[in-house]
Amino acid sequence: MTERIGFIGLGIMGQGMAHNLLKAGFELTVWNRTASKMESLVAAGAKAAQTPAKVAAQSDIVIICVSDTADVEAVILGEHGVLAGAQSGSLVIDCSTISPAATQQLAATLAAKGVAMLDAPVSGGSEGAAKGTLSIMVGGEASEVARAMPVFQAMGRTITHVGSIGAGQTVKLVNQILVVNNALGVCEALMFAQAGGVDLAKALQAVQAGAAGSWMLTNRGPQIIARDWRPGFTIDLQQKDLRLVLEAADKLGTPLPSTSLIFQLYRTLQAQGLGSEGNHALIKALEHLAGFEVGG
Amino acid sequence: MTERIGFIGLGIMGQGMAHNLLKAGFELTVWNRTASKMESLVAAGAKAAQTPAKVAAQSDIVIICVSDTADVEAVILGEHGVLAGAQSGSLVIDCSTISPAATQQLAATLAAKGVAMLDAPVSGGSEGAAKGTLSIMVGGEASEVARAMPVFQAMGRTITHVGSIGAGQTVKLVNQILVVNNALGVCEALMFAQAGGVDLAKALQAVQAGAAGSWMLTNRGPQIIARDWRPGFTIDLQQKDLRLVLEAADKLGTPLPSTSLIFQLYRTLQAQGLGSEGNHALIKALEHLAGFEVGG
Repeated sequence: MTERIGFIGLGIMGQGMAHNLLKAGFELTVWNRTASKMESLVAAGAKAAQTPAKVAAQSDIVIICVSDTADVEAVILGEHGVLAGAQSGSLVIDCSTISPAATQQLAATLAAKGVAMLDAPVSGGSEGAAKGTLSIMVGGEASEVARAMPVFQAMGRTITHVGSIGAGQTVKLVNQILVVNNALGVCEALMFAQAGGVDLAKALQAVQAGAAGSWMLTNRGPQIIARDWRPGFTIDLQQKDLRLVLEAADKLGTPLPSTSLIFQLYRTLQAQGLGSEGNHALIKALEHLAGFEVGG
Repeated sequence: MTERIGFIGLGIMGQGMAHNLLKAGFELTVWNRTASKMESLVAAGAKAAQTPAKVAAQSDIVIICVSDTADVEAVILGEHGVLAGAQSGSLVIDCSTISPAATQQLAATLAAKGVAMLDAPVSGGSEGAAKGTLSIMVGGEASEVARAMPVFQAMGRTITHVGSIGAGQTVKLVNQILVVNNALGVCEALMFAQAGGVDLAKALQAVQAGAAGSWMLTNRGPQIIARDWRPGFTIDLQQKDLRLVLEAADKLGTPLPSTSLIFQLYRTLQAQGLGSEGNHALIKALEHLAGFEVGG
């Protein structure tokens, strides 16, 4: 029996993921807070539901892809939420990036009604969502991961079961810690190179194949030099994820000196109204401190 | 005419580099402060000289590969130094990692005697030196770089002419800024993953192919998890290079908040007597702050 799929949250990520589920042949019911975003999916064969509860009532597996912890809580626990409509034996998969601790609480609430939950945050951006090449970090019971695997394979390329419920969120936050620290390294390196008067492109070329190399250096270094601030991932979203990192680290009792510094630097850019620029615009915080700019 | 080569400084890097010059067929004269380190090269066909001045007197190109700024200054400017023996028209290539500003001063002093200079710091470690696969970052006049190219090609694989004299050192320091920031990112990520209770190896596997990826994560992450502190590059050498970074950044007026934090964290490890461990042992500074360890 092929499972009936529900999809809640048709933003920049959810659009591509839901379309890939239709392409893979799944029966799909969708809901989005802004109803107009359901149109292209309905045109491609999905059914539109009136509420998250009605999505859940018509689905064996409900996927959620919204912005933050409060949004997931509202979609699941709200008056017409998933919990109100879900049948015992169904499965909720949360692809949002939210608090690991809140994820565990939501899973417990769903379990009391016989509904299973996996946390499955993704990375790879809107391009990965559209192409079905996302990396998906999954936390939860192995039997539920196996059940969900055809769904994951329709949306992503690298699917890693990293542990019990909440572990997917923890690993996604690990991913974000790495991303922003690598970004700050690229920014400090380029500031130093600029101040030292060397050709920035040649400097990158000389170092990127060795021990200094990173995805961030190869992909965002040239973009910084060209002062191209178009987002692969926005500062506002990066900051939202760093807030999750620092809240979780505080609860866990882990000092993160550099990541907390980066959070504060991004804060200065949000204060300047730059939240919709790419996360590599972090260098503007250093430029503001230094009084000079790189590249251009 | 094949140029006669001199080589000063037969440490862990210089040994391999000098042997590769012999293998490439160059006539080689060597000098090292500890004379016994010349033996294997003499056995392989090199001539041993009594002083740096005598190396310079018998060479068209003199390569220097020692530890720090003061060592290079002593070898060039000392009583029996390169400057005392070098002929007009000869070329000095400094493969040490030292101050960019001191490099420019040394080049000016040599130029007054008609001796050219290139700065050509390397990366790739002792393994790269032995195999002839180093990355070499070269600063100086293009005509001198062309003259030196057969020598560079005998010792390295990626040779990048990055700018005028001192630019090689600046780019090497750019490399070190990237290395240590990527390392701190790996350390904070692993501390967070450990505190969050996820499987560390699975977490690395889930994130390393994407935007979080770096050479440091792929190569040193597993080593940290295994608590294997054998050095690819020691904390003492890393700290020496970070001191050069911060001194140069201070002169240039560039704030480097994260790199200066990392310098201080490495200082705590040196204070604990861990200077000979690998630079990935940086995580021990965070472990000391947090009161728990990762992996093992």
